[in-house]
Amino acid sequence: MDSATCLAIARSGGLELHALTIAYGQRHAIEVERARAVALALGVRDHRVLELDLRAFGGSALTSDLAVPKDRPLGAAGIPSTYVPARNTIFLSLALGLAEVVGAAEIYIGVTAVDYSGYPDCRPEFVSAFEALAAVATRAAVEQGRRVVVRAPLMRMSKAEIVRTGISLGLDYGLTHSCYDPSPEGLACGRCDACVLRRRGFEQAGVVDPTHYVRGG
Amino acid sequence: MDSATCLAIARSGGLELHALTIAYGQRHAIEVERARAVALALGVRDHRVLELDLRAFGGSALTSDLAVPKDRPLGAAGIPSTYVPARNTIFLSLALGLAEVVGAAEIYIGVTAVDYSGYPDCRPEFVSAFEALAAVATRAAVEQGRRVVVRAPLMRMSKAEIVRTGISLGLDYGLTHSCYDPSPEGLACGRCDACVLRRRGFEQAGVVDPTHYVRGG
Repeated sequence: MDSATCLAIARSGGLELHALTIAYGQRHAIEVERARAVALALGVRDHRVLELDLRAFGGSALTSDLAVPKDRPLGAAGIPSTYVPARNTIFLSLALGLAEVVGAAEIYIGVTAVDYSGYPDCRPEFVSAFEALAAVATRAAVEQGRRVVVRAPLMRMSKAEIVRTGISLGLDYGLTHSCYDPSPEGLACGRCDACVLRRRGFEQAGVVDPTHYVRGG
Repeated sequence: MDSATCLAIARSGGLELHALTIAYGQRHAIEVERARAVALALGVRDHRVLELDLRAFGGSALTSDLAVPKDRPLGAAGIPSTYVPARNTIFLSLALGLAEVVGAAEIYIGVTAVDYSGYPDCRPEFVSAFEALAAVATRAAVEQGRRVVVRAPLMRMSKAEIVRTGISLGLDYGLTHSCYDPSPEGLACGRCDACVLRRRGFEQAGVVDPTHYVRGG
Protein backbone atom coordinates (compact mmCIF):
# COMPACT_ATOMS: atom_id res chain seq x y z
CA MET A 1 0.00 0.00 0.00
CA ASP A 2 2.89 2.39 0.67
CA SER A 3 4.59 1.89 -2.69
CA ALA A 4 1.27 2.15 -4.53
CA THR A 5 0.33 5.36 -2.70
CA CYS A 6 3.76 6.77 -3.41
CA LEU A 7 3.31 5.94 -7.10
CA ALA A 8 -0.13 7.59 -7.10
CA ILE A 9 1.40 10.73 -5.59
CA ALA A 10 4.18 10.82 -8.21
CA ARG A 11 1.57 10.35 -10.92
CA SER A 12 -0.56 13.19 -9.54
CA GLY A 13 2.42 15.47 -10.16
CA GLY A 14 2.20 14.70 -13.86
CA LEU A 15 5.51 12.85 -14.00
CA GLU A 16 6.42 10.22 -16.57
CA LEU A 17 6.64 7.04 -14.50
CA HIS A 18 9.26 4.30 -14.71
CA ALA A 19 8.64 1.71 -12.02
CA LEU A 20 11.07 -0.79 -10.52
CA THR A 21 10.11 -3.86 -8.53
CA ILE A 22 12.69 -6.17 -7.01
CA ALA A 23 11.86 -9.85 -6.79
CA TYR A 24 14.31 -10.49 -3.96
CA GLY A 25 13.19 -13.91 -2.91
CA GLN A 26 10.72 -12.41 -0.48
CA ARG A 27 8.38 -14.79 1.28
CA HIS A 28 5.46 -12.67 0.06
CA ALA A 29 6.41 -12.91 -3.62
CA ILE A 30 2.78 -12.27 -4.40
CA GLU A 31 3.55 -8.58 -3.94
CA VAL A 32 5.50 -8.69 -7.20
CA GLU A 33 2.38 -9.73 -9.10
CA ARG A 34 0.33 -7.12 -7.30
CA ALA A 35 2.91 -4.51 -8.24
CA ARG A 36 2.35 -5.39 -11.89
CA ALA A 37 -1.37 -4.79 -11.48
CA VAL A 38 -0.78 -1.46 -9.72
CA ALA A 39 1.70 -0.30 -12.38
CA LEU A 40 -0.79 -1.18 -15.09
CA ALA A 41 -3.67 0.58 -13.32
CA LEU A 42 -1.62 3.73 -12.80
CA GLY A 43 -0.34 4.00 -16.35
CA VAL A 44 3.34 3.45 -15.65
CA ARG A 45 5.35 3.93 -18.84
CA ASP A 46 7.60 0.99 -18.16
CA HIS A 47 7.67 -1.37 -15.23
CA ARG A 48 10.74 -3.48 -14.71
CA VAL A 49 10.91 -6.45 -12.41
CA LEU A 50 14.47 -7.31 -11.49
CA GLU A 51 15.40 -10.67 -10.00
CA LEU A 52 17.89 -10.55 -7.11
CA ASP A 53 17.73 -13.51 -4.81
CA LEU A 54 18.64 -12.24 -1.35
CA ARG A 55 17.88 -15.67 0.10
CA ALA A 56 21.54 -16.26 -0.80
CA PHE A 57 22.32 -13.97 2.17
CA GLY A 58 19.36 -14.75 4.43
CA GLY A 59 19.43 -12.97 7.76
CA SER A 60 15.75 -11.98 7.69
CA ALA A 61 12.37 -13.60 8.33
CA LEU A 62 11.43 -12.44 4.82
CA THR A 63 14.30 -14.23 3.09
CA SER A 64 14.87 -17.32 5.21
CA ASP A 65 13.03 -19.92 7.27
CA LEU A 66 12.90 -17.66 10.33
CA ALA A 67 9.29 -17.26 11.49
CA VAL A 68 7.55 -13.95 10.80
CA PRO A 69 6.70 -12.40 14.18
CA LYS A 70 2.98 -12.17 14.85
CA ASP A 71 0.89 -10.00 17.17
CA ARG A 72 3.76 -7.69 18.04
CA PRO A 73 2.50 -4.69 19.99
CA LEU A 74 2.47 -1.53 17.90
CA GLY A 75 5.38 0.65 18.92
CA ALA A 76 7.36 -2.27 20.35
CA ALA A 77 11.03 -1.41 20.81
CA GLY A 78 13.74 -2.87 18.62
CA ILE A 79 14.04 -3.68 14.95
CA PRO A 80 12.17 -6.92 14.20
CA SER A 81 13.44 -9.97 12.35
CA THR A 82 11.56 -8.93 9.21
CA TYR A 83 14.30 -6.35 8.68
CA VAL A 84 16.19 -7.37 5.51
CA PRO A 85 19.85 -6.38 5.78
CA ALA A 86 20.56 -3.28 3.66
CA ARG A 87 17.37 -3.81 1.66
CA ASN A 88 16.46 -0.23 0.93
CA THR A 89 20.11 0.64 0.30
CA ILE A 90 20.13 -2.08 -2.34
CA PHE A 91 16.76 -0.97 -3.74
CA LEU A 92 17.75 2.69 -3.99
CA SER A 93 21.09 1.76 -5.58
CA LEU A 94 19.27 -0.18 -8.27
CA ALA A 95 16.80 2.68 -8.71
CA LEU A 96 19.77 5.04 -9.05
CA GLY A 97 21.17 2.95 -11.88
CA LEU A 98 17.83 2.84 -13.66
CA ALA A 99 17.28 6.57 -13.09
CA GLU A 100 20.60 7.31 -14.73
CA VAL A 101 19.81 5.13 -17.75
CA VAL A 102 16.33 6.58 -18.36
CA GLY A 103 17.38 10.12 -17.42
CA ALA A 104 15.07 10.41 -14.41
CA ALA A 105 15.57 13.40 -12.12
CA GLU A 106 13.68 11.98 -9.16
CA ILE A 107 13.39 8.66 -7.37
CA TYR A 108 10.21 8.07 -5.36
CA ILE A 109 10.27 5.58 -2.51
CA GLY A 110 7.34 4.74 -0.24
CA VAL A 111 9.17 4.64 3.08
CA THR A 112 7.57 6.06 6.20
CA ALA A 113 8.90 6.66 9.68
CA VAL A 114 5.55 7.05 11.45
CA ASP A 115 3.49 3.84 11.57
CA TYR A 116 6.38 1.53 10.73
CA SER A 117 8.46 -1.31 12.09
CA GLY A 118 11.48 0.76 13.08
CA TYR A 119 13.59 -0.25 10.11
CA PRO A 120 16.67 1.99 9.95
CA ASP A 121 16.45 2.37 6.19
CA CYS A 122 13.02 4.00 6.35
CA ARG A 123 14.15 7.15 8.18
CA PRO A 124 14.81 10.69 6.89
CA GLU A 125 18.52 10.50 7.73
CA PHE A 126 18.84 7.41 5.57
CA VAL A 127 17.21 9.10 2.59
CA SER A 128 19.41 12.20 3.01
CA ALA A 129 22.56 10.10 3.23
CA PHE A 130 21.58 8.27 0.07
CA GLU A 131 21.08 11.53 -1.79
CA ALA A 132 24.53 12.67 -0.68
CA LEU A 133 26.00 9.42 -1.96
CA ALA A 134 24.17 9.70 -5.29
CA ALA A 135 25.62 13.18 -5.78
CA VAL A 136 29.14 11.70 -6.07
CA ALA A 137 28.33 8.26 -7.48
CA THR A 138 27.06 8.66 -11.02
CA ARG A 139 28.28 10.03 -14.32
CA ALA A 140 25.07 12.03 -14.64
CA ALA A 141 25.79 13.82 -11.35
CA VAL A 142 29.53 14.25 -11.67
CA GLU A 143 29.92 14.99 -15.38
CA GLN A 144 26.61 16.65 -16.18
CA GLY A 145 25.50 18.05 -12.83
CA ARG A 146 22.28 16.05 -12.97
CA ARG A 147 21.72 15.14 -9.34
CA VAL A 148 18.94 12.76 -8.47
CA VAL A 149 16.49 13.87 -5.80
CA VAL A 150 15.03 11.13 -3.62
CA ARG A 151 11.40 11.82 -2.73
CA ALA A 152 9.79 10.04 0.20
CA PRO A 153 6.34 11.66 0.28
CA LEU A 154 4.98 9.26 2.91
CA MET A 155 7.84 9.87 5.35
CA ARG A 156 5.81 11.85 7.87
CA MET A 157 2.36 10.42 7.17
CA SER A 158 0.48 8.08 9.48
CA LYS A 159 -1.02 4.97 7.89
CA ALA A 160 -4.44 6.63 8.08
CA GLU A 161 -3.13 9.65 6.19
CA ILE A 162 -1.60 7.33 3.61
CA VAL A 163 -4.96 5.61 3.10
CA ARG A 164 -6.81 8.92 2.81
CA THR A 165 -4.24 10.25 0.35
CA GLY A 166 -4.47 7.17 -1.84
CA ILE A 167 -8.26 7.19 -1.80
CA SER A 168 -8.32 10.88 -2.74
CA LEU A 169 -6.11 10.02 -5.72
CA GLY A 170 -8.43 7.22 -6.82
CA LEU A 171 -6.11 4.38 -5.85
CA ASP A 172 -7.73 0.95 -5.59
CA TYR A 173 -6.17 -0.61 -2.49
CA GLY A 174 -7.78 -3.90 -3.46
CA LEU A 175 -4.89 -4.26 -5.92
CA THR A 176 -2.26 -3.89 -3.22
CA HIS A 177 -0.65 -6.43 -0.93
CA SER A 178 1.06 -5.84 2.43
CA CYS A 179 1.15 -9.12 4.39
CA TYR A 180 4.60 -10.60 5.04
CA ASP A 181 3.28 -14.10 5.51
CA PRO A 182 0.33 -14.76 3.19
CA SER A 183 -1.39 -18.11 2.90
CA PRO A 184 -0.64 -20.20 -0.19
CA GLU A 185 -3.81 -18.71 -1.68
CA GLY A 186 -2.48 -15.20 -1.09
CA LEU A 187 -4.73 -14.33 1.86
CA ALA A 188 -3.26 -11.91 4.39
CA CYS A 189 -2.41 -13.35 7.83
CA GLY A 190 -3.80 -10.34 9.71
CA ARG A 191 -1.19 -10.67 12.44
CA CYS A 192 2.22 -9.65 11.09
CA ASP A 193 3.44 -6.06 11.46
CA ALA A 194 2.46 -5.25 7.89
CA CYS A 195 -1.10 -6.50 8.41
CA VAL A 196 -1.53 -4.88 11.82
CA LEU A 197 -0.36 -1.49 10.53
CA ARG A 198 -2.43 -1.75 7.37
CA ARG A 199 -5.58 -2.77 9.15
CA ARG A 200 -5.32 -0.03 11.75
CA GLY A 201 -4.63 2.52 9.02
CA PHE A 202 -7.89 1.69 7.28
CA GLU A 203 -9.77 1.71 10.59
CA GLN A 204 -8.39 5.08 11.62
CA ALA A 205 -9.08 6.51 8.17
CA GLY A 206 -12.66 5.25 8.36
CA VAL A 207 -12.26 3.40 5.10
CA VAL A 208 -13.33 -0.19 4.45
CA ASP A 209 -10.24 -2.41 4.22
CA PRO A 210 -10.51 -4.39 0.96
CA THR A 211 -7.92 -6.92 2.13
CA HIS A 212 -8.84 -10.61 2.23
CA TYR A 213 -7.62 -12.02 5.52
CA VAL A 214 -7.42 -15.69 6.47
CA ARG A 215 -10.21 -16.87 8.74
CA GLY A 216 -9.33 -15.86 12.28
CA GLY A 217 -6.55 -13.60 11.02
CA MET B 1 43.69 -7.79 -10.97
CA ASP B 2 42.47 -5.03 -8.66
CA SER B 3 39.91 -7.16 -6.80
CA ALA B 4 42.41 -10.01 -6.46
CA THR B 5 45.13 -7.71 -5.12
CA CYS B 6 42.64 -6.17 -2.72
CA LEU B 7 41.71 -9.65 -1.51
CA ALA B 8 45.37 -10.55 -1.06
CA ILE B 9 45.88 -7.40 1.02
CA ALA B 10 42.87 -8.22 3.22
CA ARG B 11 44.20 -11.74 3.64
CA SER B 12 47.64 -10.48 4.63
CA GLY B 13 45.98 -8.73 7.56
CA GLY B 14 44.86 -12.09 8.89
CA LEU B 15 41.16 -11.45 8.33
CA GLU B 16 38.54 -14.13 7.85
CA LEU B 17 37.46 -13.63 4.24
CA HIS B 18 33.95 -13.70 2.84
CA ALA B 19 33.99 -12.87 -0.85
CA LEU B 20 31.18 -11.57 -3.03
CA THR B 21 31.13 -11.63 -6.82
CA ILE B 22 28.27 -10.17 -8.83
CA ALA B 23 27.39 -11.82 -12.11
CA TYR B 24 25.72 -8.70 -13.51
CA GLY B 25 25.43 -9.74 -17.12
CA GLN B 26 28.84 -8.29 -17.87
CA ARG B 27 30.22 -8.89 -21.33
CA HIS B 28 33.35 -10.33 -19.72
CA ALA B 29 31.48 -12.94 -17.68
CA ILE B 30 34.69 -14.96 -17.67
CA GLU B 31 35.79 -12.77 -14.76
CA VAL B 32 33.23 -14.55 -12.58
CA GLU B 33 34.94 -17.89 -13.19
CA ARG B 34 38.34 -16.35 -12.60
CA ALA B 35 37.05 -14.90 -9.34
CA ARG B 36 36.21 -18.42 -8.22
CA ALA B 37 39.77 -19.52 -8.93
CA VAL B 38 41.20 -16.53 -7.06
CA ALA B 39 38.92 -17.09 -4.06
CA LEU B 40 39.96 -20.73 -3.93
CA ALA B 41 43.66 -19.91 -4.21
CA LEU B 42 43.47 -17.30 -1.44
CA GLY B 43 41.58 -19.47 1.03
CA VAL B 44 38.36 -17.47 1.15
CA ARG B 45 36.03 -18.92 3.77
CA ASP B 46 32.96 -18.53 1.62
CA HIS B 47 32.61 -17.08 -1.83
CA ARG B 48 29.16 -16.12 -3.00
CA VAL B 49 28.27 -15.39 -6.58
CA LEU B 50 25.08 -13.39 -6.85
CA GLU B 51 23.16 -13.11 -10.11
CA LEU B 52 21.83 -9.65 -10.93
CA ASP B 53 21.23 -9.04 -14.60
CA LEU B 54 21.92 -5.37 -15.20
CA ARG B 55 21.40 -5.90 -18.95
CA ALA B 56 17.77 -5.21 -17.98
CA PHE B 57 18.90 -1.59 -17.54
CA GLY B 58 21.66 -1.42 -20.16
CA GLY B 59 23.26 1.99 -20.52
CA SER B 60 26.84 0.68 -20.65
CA ALA B 61 29.15 -0.98 -23.16
CA LEU B 62 29.59 -3.74 -20.57
CA THR B 63 25.87 -4.55 -20.32
CA SER B 64 24.54 -3.83 -23.82
CA ASP B 65 25.50 -4.04 -27.48
CA LEU B 66 27.41 -0.75 -27.36
CA ALA B 67 30.96 -1.30 -28.60
CA VAL B 68 33.76 -1.32 -26.03
CA PRO B 69 36.07 1.62 -26.82
CA LYS B 70 39.53 0.58 -27.98
CA ASP B 71 42.90 2.35 -28.03
CA ARG B 72 41.70 5.26 -25.90
CA PRO B 73 44.63 7.44 -24.90
CA LEU B 74 45.54 7.01 -21.24
CA GLY B 75 44.32 9.99 -19.31
CA ALA B 76 41.64 10.87 -21.89
CA ALA B 77 39.02 13.22 -20.51
CA GLY B 78 35.46 12.11 -19.81
CA ILE B 79 33.90 9.01 -18.38
CA PRO B 80 33.85 6.28 -21.04
CA SER B 81 30.90 4.16 -22.16
CA THR B 82 32.19 1.22 -20.11
CA TYR B 83 30.86 3.04 -17.05
CA VAL B 84 27.97 0.96 -15.66
CA PRO B 85 25.34 3.22 -14.06
CA ALA B 86 25.59 3.05 -10.26
CA ARG B 87 27.56 -0.18 -10.44
CA ASN B 88 29.78 0.26 -7.40
CA THR B 89 26.89 1.74 -5.42
CA ILE B 90 24.96 -1.45 -6.16
CA PHE B 91 27.97 -3.64 -5.39
CA LEU B 92 28.72 -1.94 -2.07
CA SER B 93 25.04 -2.09 -1.08
CA LEU B 94 25.02 -5.82 -1.66
CA ALA B 95 28.30 -6.15 0.24
CA LEU B 96 26.74 -4.15 3.08
CA GLY B 97 23.87 -6.62 3.28
CA LEU B 98 26.22 -9.59 3.31
CA ALA B 99 28.51 -7.89 5.85
CA GLU B 100 25.58 -7.43 8.19
CA VAL B 101 24.50 -11.06 7.86
CA VAL B 102 27.97 -12.54 8.46
CA GLY B 103 28.91 -9.92 11.06
CA ALA B 104 31.79 -8.44 9.06
CA ALA B 105 33.29 -5.19 10.35
CA GLU B 106 35.05 -4.25 7.11
CA ILE B 107 34.25 -4.26 3.42
CA TYR B 108 37.22 -4.32 1.05
CA ILE B 109 36.80 -3.00 -2.48
CA GLY B 110 39.51 -2.83 -5.13
CA VAL B 111 38.75 0.60 -6.54
CA THR B 112 41.55 2.94 -7.51
CA ALA B 113 41.60 6.58 -8.58
CA VAL B 114 45.10 6.64 -10.08
CA ASP B 115 45.45 4.53 -13.25
CA TYR B 116 41.72 4.25 -13.90
CA SER B 117 39.01 5.15 -16.37
CA GLY B 118 37.61 8.13 -14.48
CA TYR B 119 34.57 6.27 -13.13
CA PRO B 120 32.92 8.44 -10.45
CA ASP B 121 32.30 5.48 -8.17
CA CYS B 122 36.00 4.70 -7.83
CA ARG B 123 36.92 7.93 -6.01
CA PRO B 124 37.64 8.59 -2.31
CA GLU B 125 34.58 10.87 -1.97
CA PHE B 126 32.37 8.05 -3.18
CA VAL B 127 33.77 5.62 -0.64
CA SER B 128 33.38 8.18 2.17
CA ALA B 129 29.80 8.93 1.20
CA PHE B 130 28.98 5.23 1.19
CA GLU B 131 30.43 4.82 4.68
CA ALA B 132 28.26 7.70 5.88
CA LEU B 133 25.20 6.05 4.35
CA ALA B 134 26.04 2.68 5.90
CA ALA B 135 26.24 4.32 9.32
CA VAL B 136 22.50 5.09 9.21
CA ALA B 137 21.28 2.23 7.00
CA THR B 138 21.63 -1.01 8.93
CA ARG B 139 20.34 -2.56 12.11
CA ALA B 140 23.91 -3.45 13.06
CA ALA B 141 24.96 0.21 12.89
CA VAL B 142 21.86 1.81 14.37
CA GLU B 143 20.91 -0.69 17.06
CA GLN B 144 24.27 -2.16 17.98
CA GLY B 145 26.72 0.56 17.00
CA ARG B 146 28.53 -1.81 14.65
CA ARG B 147 29.54 0.48 11.82
CA VAL B 148 31.07 -1.02 8.74
CA VAL B 149 34.36 0.45 7.54
CA VAL B 150 34.94 0.46 3.78
CA ARG B 151 38.58 -0.19 2.91
CA ALA B 152 39.91 0.72 -0.51
CA PRO B 153 43.60 -0.11 -0.13
CA LEU B 154 44.38 0.42 -3.83
CA MET B 155 42.83 3.90 -3.94
CA ARG B 156 46.10 5.79 -4.24
CA MET B 157 48.23 3.09 -5.88
CA SER B 158 49.38 3.18 -9.50
CA LYS B 159 48.85 0.01 -11.51
CA ALA B 160 52.57 -0.72 -11.17
CA GLU B 161 52.30 -0.45 -7.38
CA ILE B 162 49.29 -2.74 -7.46
CA VAL B 163 51.27 -5.34 -9.41
CA ARG B 164 54.27 -5.08 -7.10
CA THR B 165 52.05 -5.38 -4.04
CA GLY B 166 50.27 -8.46 -5.37
CA ILE B 167 53.55 -10.13 -6.36
CA SER B 168 55.00 -9.44 -2.91
CA LEU B 169 51.96 -11.17 -1.42
CA GLY B 170 52.39 -14.22 -3.66
CA LEU B 171 49.38 -13.52 -5.85
CA ASP B 172 49.30 -15.40 -9.16
CA TYR B 173 48.06 -12.83 -11.68
CA GLY B 174 47.72 -15.65 -14.19
CA LEU B 175 44.45 -16.44 -12.40
CA THR B 176 43.04 -12.96 -12.90
CA HIS B 177 41.13 -11.40 -15.77
CA SER B 178 40.80 -7.72 -16.67
CA CYS B 179 39.75 -7.41 -20.34
CA TYR B 180 36.30 -5.92 -20.98
CA ASP B 181 35.98 -7.52 -24.38
CA PRO B 182 37.61 -10.95 -24.41
CA SER B 183 37.49 -13.30 -27.38
CA PRO B 184 35.12 -16.28 -27.18
CA GLU B 185 38.13 -18.30 -25.99
CA GLY B 186 38.72 -15.84 -23.16
CA LEU B 187 41.79 -14.13 -24.64
CA ALA B 188 42.26 -10.48 -23.70
CA CYS B 189 41.79 -7.93 -26.49
CA GLY B 190 44.81 -5.86 -25.47
CA ARG B 191 43.14 -2.62 -26.55
CA CYS B 192 40.31 -1.76 -24.12
CA ASP B 193 41.00 0.50 -21.13
CA ALA B 194 41.28 -2.47 -18.80
CA CYS B 195 43.90 -4.16 -21.00
CA VAL B 196 45.87 -0.97 -21.65
CA LEU B 197 46.05 -0.13 -17.95
CA ARG B 198 46.90 -3.69 -16.98
CA ARG B 199 49.61 -4.08 -19.57
CA ARG B 200 51.28 -0.80 -18.72
CA GLY B 201 51.11 -1.67 -15.02
CA PHE B 202 53.09 -4.86 -15.57
CA GLU B 203 55.56 -3.07 -17.83
CA GLN B 204 56.16 -0.28 -15.35
CA ALA B 205 56.51 -2.78 -12.51
CA GLY B 206 59.05 -4.73 -14.54
CA VAL B 207 57.03 -7.91 -14.14
CA VAL B 208 56.17 -10.34 -16.94
CA ASP B 209 52.47 -10.00 -17.79
CA PRO B 210 50.95 -13.50 -17.69
CA THR B 211 47.89 -12.42 -19.68
CA HIS B 212 47.07 -14.22 -22.91
CA TYR B 213 46.21 -11.59 -25.50
CA VAL B 214 44.66 -12.21 -28.91
CA ARG B 215 47.10 -12.14 -31.80
CA GLY B 216 47.75 -8.49 -32.71
CA GLY B 217 46.04 -7.35 -29.50
